[in-house]
Amino acid sequence: MIQVGIIGATGYAGGELVRLLYGHKEAEIKWYGSRSYVDQKYASVYQNMFQIVEDVCRDDNLKQLAKEVDVIFTATPQGFLAGVLDEEILSNTKVIDLSADFRIKDVATYEKWYGIEHKSPQFIPEAVYGLCERNREAIKQARLVANPGCYPTCSITSIFPLAAEGLIDMNTLIIDAKSGTSGAGRSAKVANLYCEVNENIKAYGVASHRHTPEIEEQLSYAAGCPVVLNFTPHLVPMNRGILVTAYASLKEVKKPDGSLGLPDAAMIRAAYDKYYQDEKFVRVLPEGVCPETKWVEGSNFVDVNVKVDPRTKRVIMMGAMDNLVKGAAGQAVQNMNLMFGLEESEGLDLVPMFP
Amino acid sequence: MIQVGIIGATGYAGGELVRLLYGHKEAEIKWYGSRSYVDQKYASVYQNMFQIVEDVCRDDNLKQLAKEVDVIFTATPQGFLAGVLDEEILSNTKVIDLSADFRIKDVATYEKWYGIEHKSPQFIPEAVYGLCERNREAIKQARLVANPGCYPTCSITSIFPLAAEGLIDMNTLIIDAKSGTSGAGRSAKVANLYCEVNENIKAYGVASHRHTPEIEEQLSYAAGCPVVLNFTPHLVPMNRGILVTAYASLKEVKKPDGSLGLPDAAMIRAAYDKYYQDEKFVRVLPEGVCPETKWVEGSNFVDVNVKVDPRTKRVIMMGAMDNLVKGAAGQAVQNMNLMFGLEESEGLDLVPMFP
Amino acid sequence: MIQVGIIGATGYAGGELVRLLYGHKEAEIKWYGSRSYVDQKYASVYQNMFQIVEDVCRDDNLKQLAKEVDVIFTATPQGFLAGVLDEEILSNTKVIDLSADFRIKDVATYEKWYGIEHKSPQFIPEAVYGLCERNREAIKQARLVANPGCYPTCSITSIFPLAAEGLIDMNTLIIDAKSGTSGAGRSAKVANLYCEVNENIKAYGVASHRHTPEIEEQLSYAAGCPVVLNFTPHLVPMNRGILVTAYASLKEVKKPDGSLGLPDAAMIRAAYDKYYQDEKFVRVLPEGVCPETKWVEGSNFVDVNVKVDPRTKRVIMMGAMDNLVKGAAGQAVQNMNLMFGLEESEGLDLVPMFP
Amino acid sequence: MIQVGIIGATGYAGGELVRLLYGHKEAEIKWYGSRSYVDQKYASVYQNMFQIVEDVCRDDNLKQLAKEVDVIFTATPQGFLAGVLDEEILSNTKVIDLSADFRIKDVATYEKWYGIEHKSPQFIPEAVYGLCERNREAIKQARLVANPGCYPTCSITSIFPLAAEGLIDMNTLIIDAKSGTSGAGRSAKVANLYCEVNENIKAYGVASHRHTPEIEEQLSYAAGCPVVLNFTPHLVPMNRGILVTAYASLKEVKKPDGSLGLPDAAMIRAAYDKYYQDEKFVRVLPEGVCPETKWVEGSNFVDVNVKVDPRTKRVIMMGAMDNLVKGAAGQAVQNMNLMFGLEESEGLDLVPMFP
Repeated sequence: MIQVGIIGATGYAGGELVRLLYGHKEAEIKWYGSRSYVDQKYASVYQNMFQIVEDVCRDDNLKQLAKEVDVIFTATPQGFLAGVLDEEILSNTKVIDLSADFRIKDVATYEKWYGIEHKSPQFIPEAVYGLCERNREAIKQARLVANPGCYPTCSITSIFPLAAEGLIDMNTLIIDAKSGTSGAGRSAKVANLYCEVNENIKAYGVASHRHTPEIEEQLSYAAGCPVVLNFTPHLVPMNRGILVTAYASLKEVKKPDGSLGLPDAAMIRAAYDKYYQDEKFVRVLPEGVCPETKWVEGSNFVDVNVKVDPRTKRVIMMGAMDNLVKGAAGQAVQNMNLMFGLEESEGLDLVPMFP
Repeated sequence: MIQVGIIGATGYAGGELVRLLYGHKEAEIKWYGSRSYVDQKYASVYQNMFQIVEDVCRDDNLKQLAKEVDVIFTATPQGFLAGVLDEEILSNTKVIDLSADFRIKDVATYEKWYGIEHKSPQFIPEAVYGLCERNREAIKQARLVANPGCYPTCSITSIFPLAAEGLIDMNTLIIDAKSGTSGAGRSAKVANLYCEVNENIKAYGVASHRHTPEIEEQLSYAAGCPVVLNFTPHLVPMNRGILVTAYASLKEVKKPDGSLGLPDAAMIRAAYDKYYQDEKFVRVLPEGVCPETKWVEGSNFVDVNVKVDPRTKRVIMMGAMDNLVKGAAGQAVQNMNLMFGLEESEGLDLVPMFP
Repeated sequence: MIQVGIIGATGYAGGELVRLLYGHKEAEIKWYGSRSYVDQKYASVYQNMFQIVEDVCRDDNLKQLAKEVDVIFTATPQGFLAGVLDEEILSNTKVIDLSADFRIKDVATYEKWYGIEHKSPQFIPEAVYGLCERNREAIKQARLVANPGCYPTCSITSIFPLAAEGLIDMNTLIIDAKSGTSGAGRSAKVANLYCEVNENIKAYGVASHRHTPEIEEQLSYAAGCPVVLNFTPHLVPMNRGILVTAYASLKEVKKPDGSLGLPDAAMIRAAYDKYYQDEKFVRVLPEGVCPETKWVEGSNFVDVNVKVDPRTKRVIMMGAMDNLVKGAAGQAVQNMNLMFGLEESEGLDLVPMFP
Repeated sequence: MIQVGIIGATGYAGGELVRLLYGHKEAEIKWYGSRSYVDQKYASVYQNMFQIVEDVCRDDNLKQLAKEVDVIFTATPQGFLAGVLDEEILSNTKVIDLSADFRIKDVATYEKWYGIEHKSPQFIPEAVYGLCERNREAIKQARLVANPGCYPTCSITSIFPLAAEGLIDMNTLIIDAKSGTSGAGRSAKVANLYCEVNENIKAYGVASHRHTPEIEEQLSYAAGCPVVLNFTPHLVPMNRGILVTAYASLKEVKKPDGSLGLPDAAMIRAAYDKYYQDEKFVRVLPEGVCPETKWVEGSNFVDVNVKVDPRTKRVIMMGAMDNLVKGAAGQAVQNMNLMFGLEESEGLDLVPMFP
């Protein structure tokens, strides 16, 4: 039985970790870390866990915790983990970090977009970017996994096949993303009040959202060249779900018959099948069916689909995902499974809930 | 492995049956009955089941189906099952009926409230009312289970202990209930359009809702006398969830010290503990914590609590439940488990999803 | 032109006052009081007022303000107005208080339910309870109007005719109310976050909500005897709207033909017509049509209806209203119109917005 | 007093026309046309109009109606008006068509995208595209105004200044739009049920939505060259509102100092000010403030803003609008005001409702 500690167990991502790990056959939570609710029963904070979780919340103490558990999930604000991580911790336990601290390889880029100094740059090189479908083998060997951001998970999954196969002009890439409100976290802010979000939609972080460099870095690896793109997130009046609509111009390629030309729908579709036909958690939808966030709610799926527009010679890439599952806690558990040699889908065999 | 047939698999309750049975270790669905979607892939109707369910929808044929499966769930309009049920079917298979056809023992009462003739009154006597916490032993022996209505499940569960213990005046009982919109079903009606329900709340079926006699009958058994009550349902802008707020005057009783008087909070609470302390799916919340539908969403729990008002000498009984789970498909699976001698909670170990 | 000052202009009720007064032909706002946003442009707090309101928010200073304006609206926390009011202020200006400070005639009752000491009990006697349809003449003469609470406005309006006509047993009165979330105000609390309220319904303040004594007092006047009742509010996932569902047993009365008996539907309806047929803002709906909050959204209407249940000998009284308009800012403007001798509906000729 | 007839008065756009015209000082509705509700009281279909509108719904009869009223609004399905319009009608009355029949100048384009034959192509040349801010003078002279589509109104308004000033490369234009559900109309379809839309977001009509050629045509006029673009609408769980997020690459231009280069933020902003500083209904928001649909709800405003991204050399154009007001009924009334020589904002002085 894997012993698990969670730092930040009372945020929405932390709460989702608790929900998912309850159904996990090989793991049990030993530590519910929460600065805000120390010594309170966890189930008094998340009443859904009443009579399911009996533990109380405890202060975070990563050093001590590392000696007691096999893996620590940090669902904490940016900078927290980088501020306390050391070799001793990593020699005692594995760490899956749901914050952004170790997602970006270039320290300067991290510091510019996040506006804070990185306190543990020495661990960046060994940190593995935990997008399971991409880095499966490296994750299995990792001590420190940087669990991807919610927007990046959905964006990269939706775009990767065409980037990797060279079918789109990466200079034309635009990502328009929409997220439910749980992505904004559980802290009390006027902007996140019910009456402010309900019956409303807006863009935010336009041309400045922190997930931009993370997406760019990963797609650069896919495309084999630097990628600079537009990423615009929007806040949608719903609890869960991220929808990505991405646009790019098709690139002239050598077609199967040897001629040069724009890839057709079949080639585009083949690219998605190539990367995802054996992936349990990425579902390439039937032609003409657009991803909807409701169809994946509560599950670890990313639903993707693609549409070629011959009028504009562009392709529209779409992806839908539950931001708290595949976009946070679910992928974190998937990473844990890989790191401990378990069945990758253990605890994640979740059927989306509808309606 | 129990072979299962579902008639009405593409309604919301049918869809929830499919979701729950997918996670059930001892049952598998052999028949997805749906008149509206015959020969279409089930996953094209409920896209959440894409790559999970590969079957197509089939026309309903209860007689044939009864020979092929061990149990049939009928999630069908009122009158359907009563119109086709016969001894041959019941000798071939077990039937769990999610409609109201066999919930009410008095045929005249059924016909008055539902406005249709009952075509199979001969099976009413043997039908067992499938409120598992109340009729567990009878359900185990049943061929035909009448799965309770959503409002009745939540209402009866919330009120039963005080009715059974004689602590409230049954003539004063008022039930004010609130339901999410999935209870209205998946048929296309203007009144159920998004824009009509959203940002809106209303009462409906005032003093005339069909679940009234069902609640009255069951509470009559509990109280040992006829019960006539007010039941007012309301439509709430949310997908899932039923909240019951019930009111009754306290009845003078002999107190533990022998004196006559109104029951105090401790006696009231003791009544709930007596009936529910060993029940997995009924959670008596800590004092002062009001049930909320969100805390049980997606699960088979009913959360209940109670508050004594010394000013008015009344007690307020509250219950929250997911109408599609404990109020429909979950309880149906719980009934199946009982009928087949399985662990009662098999397939129902569902953690509520929050947020 | 009436000069208006608002203290608490950046809460939701304050914001609604600004919206309504913009459309008022005889009033103009001179002072946007807001402690939280001093010196910020009002339209930067409420972006809907961009290019409509150019003023900045100012600190509250009731004494100074009283000299500059003809009327002050205080949309402030409980205790604020009572803490600063004095004779000088009231001799300089009229005050319409949207808080509870002067709604309850009995100081002890106020202090018990609100848990604070009343600092200006000397002004309670002269304060007029501003339920316009009830106290029209007194309001016209008032210097100080206590604008009713949102729940009380809807509850009293729905119940008054039967209480005043002696058609119901006041000892049996139960009020089950449901409110949108704007009633909880604009302060940043976890409980009011989008993800906590959305897809959720709960009761709160059970047997202890502060609006209870206010309703009881007003209905006591109507019935001519002390009234003790149950009032249970619920939080509904919508921005605006209050729905009241109230229950009471019918009282035996002398019928038109001289016999004794329970009032029938016609007598009940006649009571509503008697009090409301000339009231512009109270709409008695056609028989069988239940009030819905969406049908009054944005308007000053209260829609009411009533249903007699011969089975239980009870009557169900229903009312729907926009909590920010008739439940707060709209009624406050209606009071202002009365106090200044204007057309009562000036600025309030608002058509409900649907959908 | 202008006599008004509405064909299609019981759809959502028709209902909004009724709401707005009630507040119009110079117009009164004489005819509430509705095939579905003939002879029923209008207020029984839209209960918000109870005691406000006393008329009944009448069958549509354009020929007869044209003789009785000064202007007809047709809020009807595509093809209806083109199927019945003739010279006699237009000689008797003015027509403001809220359908797409006369929006597109090229018949073949209309027939291809809408999939129906155009029955009155002879009236297309004289029809004026009723985007008031663009075609004010022509509208004043028109007998037949094609009221713009909701998406086109918001898209064109957001993009026009940069297209007209030649500051963006029109070949790179991508419009990602999000709409509330009232845009889908009031017909009973499963896809528009509350439970299907709530907690969900999806794209639809990808690379095939009918508003595409309308946007392209109007922006072609602005840019002075043919425009082919991507337009992707999304369905958002809210009643009202459209948000447009549009992307284009900046075009090298001669700068104020004579040099060649990309336009900077000041030049971009100046373009918006040039076209909108005197427009009452288009609000260019302060720098850094993103448009939100809630801030314009119920009003005739379009809020726009723009952000230059120096990293990608693109500009992000944003617009928010109420789809039923400026996107349908509000603009239709604005057109009527222009056609009859009234104050352009008569009846449209609507303050957005928040929350």
